[in-house]
Amino acid sequence: MSLLAVGTLAYDSIETVSERREDLLGGSATYFSLAASLFGAVSVVGVVGDDFLDRDTELLRSHGIDLEGLEVAAGKTFRWSGRYEADGNTRHTLATHLNVFEHFDPKVPGPQRSSRFVFLANAAPEIQAKALSQVLKPAFVMADTMNLWIDVARPALVDLLRRVDALILNDEEARMLTGERNLLRAASKALSLGPRHIVLKKGEHGAFLVGKGAHFALPAYPVEEVVDPTGAGDSFAGGFMGHLAAGGQVDAPALRRSMLHGTAAASFCVEGFGVERLARTSRAELDARCDELRAIVSV
Amino acid sequence: MSLLAVGTLAYDSIETVSERREDLLGGSATYFSLAASLFGAVSVVGVVGDDFLDRDTELLRSHGIDLEGLEVAAGKTFRWSGRYEADGNTRHTLATHLNVFEHFDPKVPGPQRSSRFVFLANAAPEIQAKALSQVLKPAFVMADTMNLWIDVARPALVDLLRRVDALILNDEEARMLTGERNLLRAASKALSLGPRHIVLKKGEHGAFLVGKGAHFALPAYPVEEVVDPTGAGDSFAGGFMGHLAAGGQVDAPALRRSMLHGTAAASFCVEGFGVERLARTSRAELDARCDELRAIVSV
Repeated sequence: MSLLAVGTLAYDSIETVSERREDLLGGSATYFSLAASLFGAVSVVGVVGDDFLDRDTELLRSHGIDLEGLEVAAGKTFRWSGRYEADGNTRHTLATHLNVFEHFDPKVPGPQRSSRFVFLANAAPEIQAKALSQVLKPAFVMADTMNLWIDVARPALVDLLRRVDALILNDEEARMLTGERNLLRAASKALSLGPRHIVLKKGEHGAFLVGKGAHFALPAYPVEEVVDPTGAGDSFAGGFMGHLAAGGQVDAPALRRSMLHGTAAASFCVEGFGVERLARTSRAELDARCDELRAIVSV
Repeated sequence: MSLLAVGTLAYDSIETVSERREDLLGGSATYFSLAASLFGAVSVVGVVGDDFLDRDTELLRSHGIDLEGLEVAAGKTFRWSGRYEADGNTRHTLATHLNVFEHFDPKVPGPQRSSRFVFLANAAPEIQAKALSQVLKPAFVMADTMNLWIDVARPALVDLLRRVDALILNDEEARMLTGERNLLRAASKALSLGPRHIVLKKGEHGAFLVGKGAHFALPAYPVEEVVDPTGAGDSFAGGFMGHLAAGGQVDAPALRRSMLHGTAAASFCVEGFGVERLARTSRAELDARCDELRAIVSV
């Protein structure tokens, strides 16, 4: 498996209606790589501060995650804090401290420059582009983004979209990017910006893959208790890209099966605070949930 | 096919962001029976006022809908008016005039008392129960309800639920009925009230069938433009019950295929104002959309 992820490693403070947790290991690259590691080796490019705990480095390493591209800079690790409403989905960001991520200058180590599959987690599009430029000949590149970049860095984002194979975003971001309220139209319009595939994340309502001429829709795996939705989208991306990279082929059946694995990965993620449930998910558990989900949608 | 529907025939005034239409033919039994008529004969029990247009009676008859149980009472037909927000889903009821429906006393004609499949559209649970009591030996009964009855007539609703095979309701109603926020838990709790099957309608996010031990989830058919969502739920129920009644068998595969046909029927409904698109849908069009939806979800 030849998979590279560029993104954040962070400490998150999370409040739900029932609980509050401080300084949990989080960040897009963390969730992504833990989910992707269920399929094989994954390399991370990111930056942490000198407060990043050995325990957390070890957790990632113990999942076979390659940290050669993880820079340790003087200063503090990226910190995010947020609060979820009782509906389990509405999220309020209370604080974002970029800390060492503010001057993140991604450096892809030599061996990882040959990566075939690349995930550019949510970051300023200039940073995403800078990382991508260091990869020699990727077979499949997926980028995430957020409303902030659509708003303040649209030209750079549009440039980036011409260079990626897939864009993953939530329904609100899709509407904001394209100005279309209807999700199908929004996805079609997003396709015209360059990517061959748009993955729409709809949280508890599942995910939708729109490609030129082919659609695939999948409901979420029904979870009895969403403990903490943080990281669900990046876990989805990790399951998706991990499965795709492990297979090596990019065609419609592989993409559909990757959606299934991404959905299952996200369902484990939300069952615990931070990465606590995801990090102890086995490949057998993931596969069992994929089978279950396949049965749930089969008609 | 042996299918009976008890519900309203109405005139609706509907405002969307782009258009306003007055006195459109509507009502739960209307949408339901038009959708169900794609599969065979369906009988309606309901009441209209003396202002109900011959044109509308003819429209229903021309679809093979049996109106022997349709009472014409002195007074005005049920009227509803509502407004949809730009998101296409948030609905504000502007006015409800029960008119002749206020004293509706359902009378199931002799031949229809032997109906095998019965749909009790949204109405006071006492009215639903009164209609159901006139059916001799139904094989499968599905009831709809709404927040009003959950609030003001819970004991009568709970009594009714012990007598039905399936309850169809939207996510908000499921939460209100059971006090559970999580939809899976809400559905499980609703099952404990009596029905063997709970059908959760999630609008643009699809539908979810929860039975004892078996779940089935289906996304909505992706529609490029939702013109008017009025009647989508009843069209879904009509496609579902029509397909089920036409097959005659009630087992897991039949229920899943019925969900598919209900979803397709609802997708046609929302593509026009009132019944205008649904009423001119052919069985071939419906089947084609079912095939398309099956392809969209196959993994």
